[in-house]
Amino acid sequence: MLKWVDGGVTAPLGFIAGGVNCGIKGKNLDCAAVVSDTLANVAGCFTTNKVKAAPVLLCRKYIKKNSKIKGVIINSGCANACTGGQGMKNAEDMSVYAAQLLNSNPSEIFILSTGRIGVQLPMDKIKTGIKEVIASCSKDSHSTAAQAIMTTDNFSKETACAIAIDTQTVKIGAMAKGAGMINPNMATMLAVITTDANIDESFLKEVTKEVVENTFNRITVDGDMSTNDSVIVMANGQAENSLITASSKDAQVFREAMRKVSEYLSHQIVRDGEGATKFVEISIKGAQDNDNALKAAQAVANSLLLKVALSGSDPNWGRIMSSLGSSGIEFDPHKVDVFLNGMIWIQNGILTNTDFKAVEEKWTSEHLIIGIDLHQGTGFNSYYTCDISHKYIDINI
Amino acid sequence: MLKWVDGGVTAPLGFIAGGVNCGIKGKNLDCAAVVSDTLANVAGCFTTNKVKAAPVLLCRKYIKKNSKIKGVIINSGCANACTGGQGMKNAEDMSVYAAQLLNSNPSEIFILSTGRIGVQLPMDKIKTGIKEVIASCSKDSHSTAAQAIMTTDNFSKETACAIAIDTQTVKIGAMAKGAGMINPNMATMLAVITTDANIDESFLKEVTKEVVENTFNRITVDGDMSTNDSVIVMANGQAENSLITASSKDAQVFREAMRKVSEYLSHQIVRDGEGATKFVEISIKGAQDNDNALKAAQAVANSLLLKVALSGSDPNWGRIMSSLGSSGIEFDPHKVDVFLNGMIWIQNGILTNTDFKAVEEKWTSEHLIIGIDLHQGTGFNSYYTCDISHKYIDINI
Repeated sequence: MLKWVDGGVTAPLGFIAGGVNCGIKGKNLDCAAVVSDTLANVAGCFTTNKVKAAPVLLCRKYIKKNSKIKGVIINSGCANACTGGQGMKNAEDMSVYAAQLLNSNPSEIFILSTGRIGVQLPMDKIKTGIKEVIASCSKDSHSTAAQAIMTTDNFSKETACAIAIDTQTVKIGAMAKGAGMINPNMATMLAVITTDANIDESFLKEVTKEVVENTFNRITVDGDMSTNDSVIVMANGQAENSLITASSKDAQVFREAMRKVSEYLSHQIVRDGEGATKFVEISIKGAQDNDNALKAAQAVANSLLLKVALSGSDPNWGRIMSSLGSSGIEFDPHKVDVFLNGMIWIQNGILTNTDFKAVEEKWTSEHLIIGIDLHQGTGFNSYYTCDISHKYIDINI
Repeated sequence: MLKWVDGGVTAPLGFIAGGVNCGIKGKNLDCAAVVSDTLANVAGCFTTNKVKAAPVLLCRKYIKKNSKIKGVIINSGCANACTGGQGMKNAEDMSVYAAQLLNSNPSEIFILSTGRIGVQLPMDKIKTGIKEVIASCSKDSHSTAAQAIMTTDNFSKETACAIAIDTQTVKIGAMAKGAGMINPNMATMLAVITTDANIDESFLKEVTKEVVENTFNRITVDGDMSTNDSVIVMANGQAENSLITASSKDAQVFREAMRKVSEYLSHQIVRDGEGATKFVEISIKGAQDNDNALKAAQAVANSLLLKVALSGSDPNWGRIMSSLGSSGIEFDPHKVDVFLNGMIWIQNGILTNTDFKAVEEKWTSEHLIIGIDLHQGTGFNSYYTCDISHKYIDINI
C-alpha cells in the first residue's frame, strides 16, 4: 500500500537538498540543489517547444551521454532561454562549477532554470549561489529547496510517499514549481523526483515518460507552452530492494506510486494557477477513443471564454458546447450530456436541469468536475484547468 | 480603380435594408433585414464548429437547394444554438414567416442569429420584429441594419466600394458584427455582403471561399470558435455588366474588391475586440511555405501571455519566441529576427536592440506590426489580433 510521508525530495535514502538566495530575485530564495550521495539512474522529460532554453538543451545532451547523475542545480528568476551562445556557455559553466564542488563530472550535474526569458544569467551571483547551496544541503532543507524554485507560485509544492517492494520500503520524493505558461508538452514547470528504488534504467525511463504524459501533460493554466519545462527523476538504489524491471511483480506498484506523486504535484500547479480561484477537471467519456477524449478535454480546458466564465457565477454552458465543437473530433452535438460534479445539467445537447440555483452552486464550487459524455464509444480522458481572473492579468501585464 | 463609397449593404442597386427593436435586447436594435428586389445569386461560408447553430444548419440546407435568394433576416441577442428540435423549428418558422411577407419561398430567405447560446428564441417577439423590419427596409437604413446585428460590439461595421466592370459601375456593400468568440473558421461573426454585379454563380462561390479564408479566417480575439459564424454574399446582377466568370478579364478586379471589403470589415472586428486597446498584425516571412507561416502567425496571435503583455507596456519578447516555438512548425530559433513596426528588435534569436525607450514606444502604439523573419524559405502570412485586458474579463465574466 502507498503511504504518504514527510520529507519531500529528501525522503528517499541518500538524498539531500537545499535552497539559498543568490540575489537574482532580490532577497527571495532563488537557487536550489538536490544531491544524491551515490550516483543515481536518471530519466528526464523536457519541453517540446521548438525554442528550448539553454539548460534544457544541456540536460538533453547530458542525458544522452550518461545514465547516472549526481544531482540537480536549479535557479529561479531567469529562464536562460533565448540567450544564444552565451546562455549555453553559462549553463555549462554552472554544471562544471557544481561538479568541482561535488567531485563529479559536469555531465552528472543537471541544470534547470526558470523565470524570465531573454535575459542572461548573472554568473557571479549564480556561482556564489551554487557554492552556498551545496554547502547548505541537508536532509532537513527539502522545503527550502522547494521554495527556492518558485517564480509566480503562491505556495511551494512537494510530496513524498513510501511503498513496499519485496521486503524493502522504497520512497519517492518530489518537488515542483509552476503557475503560469502552463500547457502540456509540458507546462512551464520544473519537477525533480527522487527515489531510493533500485530500478532498471530503461524501465525508469519508460515509467517517467508514461507518468509525465498522464499527469504533467494533462494540465493547463493559460495554454502557453514554456521553453524550460523539465521533469528529472533520480533513482539511487539505496533502498536495496530487488531490481525493479518492466516484468517484475512490483513494477505496477512503483508505476502507480510515481503516478500518484506526479498527479498530486501537477494538480497543485493548477490549484496555484496564476490568479486562479478554482480547480476544474474536464472529464470526457464516451468518445470514439481515448485520443479523441483527450483532444476534446484539452479544447474545453483551454477555452478562454469558458475560463473567464469559471471565475464568475454565470454557468455559461454554450461555451462548453462551442469549445467541444471546435476540438476537431467527431461527435453528434445532439447526444452530448454534461454533468456538474455528477449532477445532470445538459442532456442530448440541450439544457435539461433548470434548477438554476443548484447549477450555480455547483458552478461556483472550488473543485468543479465538468463531466461530458459524448455517447460515441468507450474513449475517456481528463484534463485539469483553472479559471482566468483579473488577477491573472495583473500578474502578467 | 476601386473607390470607397457610402451606403453599406444598400450601396449596390436593388438592395434595401433595415433594423428594428423587437424586445430581445431590451430597447436596443436586435432585428435586421437585407433584401434584394430581384432574386440574387448566393454564396455562403459557415462555421466549421461541430456544434452548429440552428440558423447555420438551415442556411446550409437552403444553399444546397437553391442558387438564388431574396434576402437575409438577422437577429441579435440570442444565437439559437444548442436549442435542439425546437430551435430548428424556430429558425425555419422565421424563414417561412419572412417569405410570406416578401412573396418568396422560405428557402430564399436566409436566417442568421447571434447572441447567447442555449436559449430559445422568443418567437412572438421575433415575428413582430420580422414584420416591422421588412416594412422598415429602405435604401437609407443600412446603418440601422448594421447596428441591429451588434452584440458586444462597441461600434457598427459597414463599408461599400465601387469598381468598373467593362462600361458599368459595380458596387459591393457589406456589414459585419463581431467582437468576442473570435477565432478562425470562422470568428463569431456575421457578415452580409451585397453586390449588384452580374456574376457567374460558381465563380461567386469560389471568390467568397477564397476571400473569407484570407480575411475573416485570419483574425483572432480570444481563440474561441463560434457556433454561428456566417458570411452571406448576395449578387443580384442589376449593374447589368457583362457576366463575370473565372476567365473574364475583370475577374481579378472583382476578386480584389471583395477582398478589400472583407479585409476592412475583418480588421474592424479585431479593432473592436472585446476590451481591446490595440490592433496587432503578426506578420511572418521566411517560413518554409505559406502554410507554415500561417501556423506560426496563428500561434503567436493566440498566445494569451503575449496578448496580456500587449495590453501593458512591458515588451515581453520571450512570449513571442515561446509561442513561435509551440506552433509545431520547423525553424531554427537561432535564425529568428523580430521587428516592431519595422524596427529591428531581436536578431538571430536574441535581443539586439537595447534602446528600451524606442522599443517600449513601438510596443505601446495602437497599431502594432510584429514582423517575424524565420529565414527558412519564402513562405509568408499574416494574422490579426488584439490585446486582452481587464475589460475583456469584465465583459465575459
